[in-house]
Amino acid sequence: MKKMMSFVGMVLYVTLLQAQTWIWYPGDYEIWLGNQMNNRRTERGAFFPPFWKIDSHYVVVEFGKQFELGQPEEIFIAVEGKYNVKLDGKLQFGMPETLMLPAGKHTLNVKVWNQATPPAIYIKGRTIHSDSSWRVTYEDKEWIDESGKASDTSATVYMNAGCWNFDGATQRPSEFMLNREPMQAISREKVKSGELIDFGKETFGYIAFKNLSGKGCLNIYYGESKEEALDTDYCETLDRLQLQLGKVMNLATNEVASAGDYVLDDSKAFRYVYIETEPGVHFDDVEMEYEFLPVEYRGSFRCNDEELNRIWEVGAYTMHLTTREFFIDGIKRDRWVWSGDAIQSYLMNYYLFFDRDAVKRTIWLLRGKDPVTSHSNTILDYTFYWFLSIYHYYMYSGDEAFVAQIYPRMQTMMEYVLGRTNNNGMVEGMTGDWVFVDWADGYLDKKGELSFEQVLFCKSLETMALCAGILDNKTDRDKYTGLSTALRAKLESAFWDESKKAMVHNRINGMQSQEVTRYSNMFSVIFDYLSPEKRKNVKDNVLLNDSILKITTPYMRFYELEALCILGEQEIVMKEMKDYWGGMLREGATTFWEKYNPQETGVQHLEMYGRPYGKSLCHAWGASPIYLLGKYYLGVTPVKEGYREFRIAPDLGGLKWMEGKVPTPGGDIYVYMDASKIKVKAGEGRGYLYFTSQKTPKANIGTIQRLDGNKYRLWMDTRDEVVVNYR
Amino acid sequence: MKKMMSFVGMVLYVTLLQAQTWIWYPGDYEIWLGNQMNNRRTERGAFFPPFWKIDSHYVVVEFGKQFELGQPEEIFIAVEGKYNVKLDGKLQFGMPETLMLPAGKHTLNVKVWNQATPPAIYIKGRTIHSDSSWRVTYEDKEWIDESGKASDTSATVYMNAGCWNFDGATQRPSEFMLNREPMQAISREKVKSGELIDFGKETFGYIAFKNLSGKGCLNIYYGESKEEALDTDYCETLDRLQLQLGKVMNLATNEVASAGDYVLDDSKAFRYVYIETEPGVHFDDVEMEYEFLPVEYRGSFRCNDEELNRIWEVGAYTMHLTTREFFIDGIKRDRWVWSGDAIQSYLMNYYLFFDRDAVKRTIWLLRGKDPVTSHSNTILDYTFYWFLSIYHYYMYSGDEAFVAQIYPRMQTMMEYVLGRTNNNGMVEGMTGDWVFVDWADGYLDKKGELSFEQVLFCKSLETMALCAGILDNKTDRDKYTGLSTALRAKLESAFWDESKKAMVHNRINGMQSQEVTRYSNMFSVIFDYLSPEKRKNVKDNVLLNDSILKITTPYMRFYELEALCILGEQEIVMKEMKDYWGGMLREGATTFWEKYNPQETGVQHLEMYGRPYGKSLCHAWGASPIYLLGKYYLGVTPVKEGYREFRIAPDLGGLKWMEGKVPTPGGDIYVYMDASKIKVKAGEGRGYLYFTSQKTPKANIGTIQRLDGNKYRLWMDTRDEVVVNYR
Repeated sequence: MKKMMSFVGMVLYVTLLQAQTWIWYPGDYEIWLGNQMNNRRTERGAFFPPFWKIDSHYVVVEFGKQFELGQPEEIFIAVEGKYNVKLDGKLQFGMPETLMLPAGKHTLNVKVWNQATPPAIYIKGRTIHSDSSWRVTYEDKEWIDESGKASDTSATVYMNAGCWNFDGATQRPSEFMLNREPMQAISREKVKSGELIDFGKETFGYIAFKNLSGKGCLNIYYGESKEEALDTDYCETLDRLQLQLGKVMNLATNEVASAGDYVLDDSKAFRYVYIETEPGVHFDDVEMEYEFLPVEYRGSFRCNDEELNRIWEVGAYTMHLTTREFFIDGIKRDRWVWSGDAIQSYLMNYYLFFDRDAVKRTIWLLRGKDPVTSHSNTILDYTFYWFLSIYHYYMYSGDEAFVAQIYPRMQTMMEYVLGRTNNNGMVEGMTGDWVFVDWADGYLDKKGELSFEQVLFCKSLETMALCAGILDNKTDRDKYTGLSTALRAKLESAFWDESKKAMVHNRINGMQSQEVTRYSNMFSVIFDYLSPEKRKNVKDNVLLNDSILKITTPYMRFYELEALCILGEQEIVMKEMKDYWGGMLREGATTFWEKYNPQETGVQHLEMYGRPYGKSLCHAWGASPIYLLGKYYLGVTPVKEGYREFRIAPDLGGLKWMEGKVPTPGGDIYVYMDASKIKVKAGEGRGYLYFTSQKTPKANIGTIQRLDGNKYRLWMDTRDEVVVNYR
Repeated sequence: MKKMMSFVGMVLYVTLLQAQTWIWYPGDYEIWLGNQMNNRRTERGAFFPPFWKIDSHYVVVEFGKQFELGQPEEIFIAVEGKYNVKLDGKLQFGMPETLMLPAGKHTLNVKVWNQATPPAIYIKGRTIHSDSSWRVTYEDKEWIDESGKASDTSATVYMNAGCWNFDGATQRPSEFMLNREPMQAISREKVKSGELIDFGKETFGYIAFKNLSGKGCLNIYYGESKEEALDTDYCETLDRLQLQLGKVMNLATNEVASAGDYVLDDSKAFRYVYIETEPGVHFDDVEMEYEFLPVEYRGSFRCNDEELNRIWEVGAYTMHLTTREFFIDGIKRDRWVWSGDAIQSYLMNYYLFFDRDAVKRTIWLLRGKDPVTSHSNTILDYTFYWFLSIYHYYMYSGDEAFVAQIYPRMQTMMEYVLGRTNNNGMVEGMTGDWVFVDWADGYLDKKGELSFEQVLFCKSLETMALCAGILDNKTDRDKYTGLSTALRAKLESAFWDESKKAMVHNRINGMQSQEVTRYSNMFSVIFDYLSPEKRKNVKDNVLLNDSILKITTPYMRFYELEALCILGEQEIVMKEMKDYWGGMLREGATTFWEKYNPQETGVQHLEMYGRPYGKSLCHAWGASPIYLLGKYYLGVTPVKEGYREFRIAPDLGGLKWMEGKVPTPGGDIYVYMDASKIKVKAGEGRGYLYFTSQKTPKANIGTIQRLDGNKYRLWMDTRDEVVVNYR
């Protein structure tokens, strides 16, 4: 990065430098760990890997650091892989575990080979230690010339190293595991020829038997619902064990372990398990080991409406279950990382855990390695969400260092997209592309130029231009600005139907279709692509128009309700949230679902993909109220990257009172609002509070500024609590 | 391949199908095994990996086969990795080791995940078995559509599987090791404070101690020469052991093993070892385990000149030592796979072992994976040798299946080259490129357009066109024919100097240099790019002109002498071989060297790269007489791919008699020649025998045809011995 680092960038940089930590080639550990994650899915006892290209780490990587020491210093070296150490270019004997560094200016290099797990190093000295300031390359194009010396014209490509939180020498990255905690069932009853165990709510982990003994088979059928667990022919996941001579064999994985207190070696999602045993098999009890990523619940929301509070809590729990090594779609199915699902998890995460590392890990994994040979998860729209997710991450975190690391892969991904545009500079589904948009209970045309895809494409090009600008890459910035401006200019002429006063769904061979769908219309509102008048048209003719194809996934409801909030319809959205998410709660949901159609009843809710229990009942995209409540009711958003400036625009949306916290890089923003006052306390310190008032409002700190009509704002530049009496 | 397979292709195809064998994604095992090979180099006890990008295998791969069975059949399944099995798209439970296949037409798929070693499968049934007819993909772009079914528009990219000779279920590819054989030293003597052990000739393997015991350090210094072994400060390789409590630790690798009969865990190249021990350390004897690839010496050469016979034998031994998992450059150094070195090994191999698998493995490894980010081994010329090596392999083997497998990587490699051409469509060294040409005892300009590089580039483009044609890819064939024709047409105008009657070395900014070097001139002869008159000019003004910078590496002597042979100068080349290779033998060589300058004496011969023992004394490129004697004295070459038609043009080059065999896909070609008769017996059966005769020649079979002057030829279409009396 040639540009001066921003204040936020500096803060992050210094933070990252504080301690020695295991480092690797950026993205490599994430991709490797992602393979562990994505390859854990099973379907009725069969291993079920993803159906897109799976990448892997660079197997030979060199780490380097220039340093200047006032006095000699001994360093400790730990490495995952076979390695050598060079001091000022001179190879040291063997694989040294300690090294005395001389005083003065020197260069230290460690080159590591590891086929099975990512090359990683950990170095600890008094002042020298491994951290993200180290440079790393997988392809140092240095060479010896005729004189035997490294040539000056070498073109070594260096990156700053990647890291997470493996700050101890024995915390080897390849040995990372999530946390576990024992959990008991709430009931255990004889049903049919076996036992049904209920853990009281949707959960995730490893079934554990106490005192398992005997000889014969034991079958475990998992269910997110009671119906699924009891349906041994159709439940989505199961385990089969074989006991004999004090040993247990898992017949799906062929792993053998001792009987007695036995814990399954693969994790599953379930609320219920149904267990059938052959007569010779015995156990005293069944428990589970709950598995989870340790996260802090930094965000919060409480209000006078208990149902809404419950919606927030169930949303938060849904998010916690799906926030793991990566943000996955659902815990029963697919247990995979999908770009369209992940971007919503990131946004909810910014209002709940603010776990930056989980976001970065997921973005790396979704991108994988070059060459790009297909769209993200093979899905056209998911590629665009991937770009958009980097825009969001930058806005919420201000992390320029990450932009610098990921930018080369943004370039190659965008080159892939640009290599597949048509003569209008627009994208259409080509061979090998999955044009997804959404699951819909009705026909969705996927042919030709979809307005939805072009809107996402346009925002992706804008994101390229933004990131190029951050990195002072003027050539790219100008190129992508040109492309995005050109596409943006075409959107209305191509898709706006002046008679329908809305964007139509698609255009085939230059012919606008007659179909209007919600997708491009709501994204145009979210991206602020429309004039105030057209926004109003979209609201009336599309978003609030019941004759337009309804959305039945929480996935697209996320954007639909966001668009309505942007249009100031918090009261309508509040009602929708209570109807839709409240509806799932009334159906007994303990986590939110992949899809919910209020028209369906009973076991209809469990069916999907033509399978009776195909639907995931714990799906991250089900948790959107977490995001909506934080962003559009508490009303907190970053205006400048990393909350360098915030905007707080609380809106009760019909509630009597609400309070909550929104996490930010520098602290939290606390908001309380009732019918007469607003209280705000912001760790970040700088930004505007927006509100409406029917009388002349008063504040304990600062000067209130009147905008149009009854709209006011207050510039905050304090970490003290600001109280505004507005009615 | 849409085209009808040629006869030779069919024969190969059927051969490959005969037995069940372990299969993998083509190139993946080779790249993985290559990493094991390339990462074994050490320098004075430090791990020394290559300095170019190291690729790895695809970690998730799916294998598939459609079959039709008359009756049900049970198959046995062995897999390297975690896997699932699908029969007609239906996932089977667990990881089945056997499966009953029903009668009828069905599809079997096995999907495997393996991070550490390449996904590989082995299937054996009565009629169904894993072989190269299986399809394999790393990126099956199938997906479920709204109905939950795989879409018809999926664009799955399939390849035929790769394999070698792992034909037994327990012969797991990841466990492959070369053969070993115990070998004794010929002498052991006290020198200085230690012992010097002489194994009598250059060799390669693991030092083995008998009855090693005690406490303290033991240092082993290896030498290709006595001087190197005894020079503990400067010998290139060494091992340091620490003995204690009945255990030995290798201080370079940190491996610990039992003392007693102890074998080092890393192999080294040496003739001598010098061992120093601390007083408390004892051993009874020192032996070695010689390590080698089992190959058949199918080619042979004998003649009346014993020195030449010895040159052939030492050349063959040099080749055997460097023909391992891959064709490496040298056994002491670099122990790496280099494209320029390998292409000469392949050519020698065609006249010695005819080991097709070793050639294919090496070609795969040298290419690696996409994206292409640098030239082969970072060297511009080495990229072109890589293309040329495929041309050679195809001509000698006729293996169209391999061309089909490697062609996609030829395309991306050539795209990389074409992306780096200048406005004249020529290549120049760019940032990151190493323009090597040769080690020379004099200044070689590497700037601008080197005529040598353009000649190699042109042949590479011709090879692209040829391979595209083989695969019926008309678009590519036309494209590359166009490019090669255009470049070929420019060569003379750009580089031929009519006053010097030779090609000049280079052109900078459109200005021809005044320098003439041998490189482009000899390759123009070899590729038949010159008119008969210009060939004659090149011979007189360059090749036989002592004032032109001399070649001092066997590497370039290979091509220099080949060019002279093509020009009919077998007698001159015979003298050169005896002087140059005979010269090394007179210096005590037991294998041929990386570089030999007859002007040097004594320890000067050992020095290179500014290090006293930097030179490799067993270097594959030192063995070129193997190739020259087979191709230009026995005179055997394929005229059509895979020896579908051969040419035999024996030339005594001043010898009284010679005989030998040249291996071919369908057998051997035996040639005997003396002053009056030629005897030929050809397993392949079809081709011309060429010879000159001063009188009317007679043959026992066939009709002799007279060409110009005293030149004759005889069409052979028999496997019987043909005898021609020609003088």
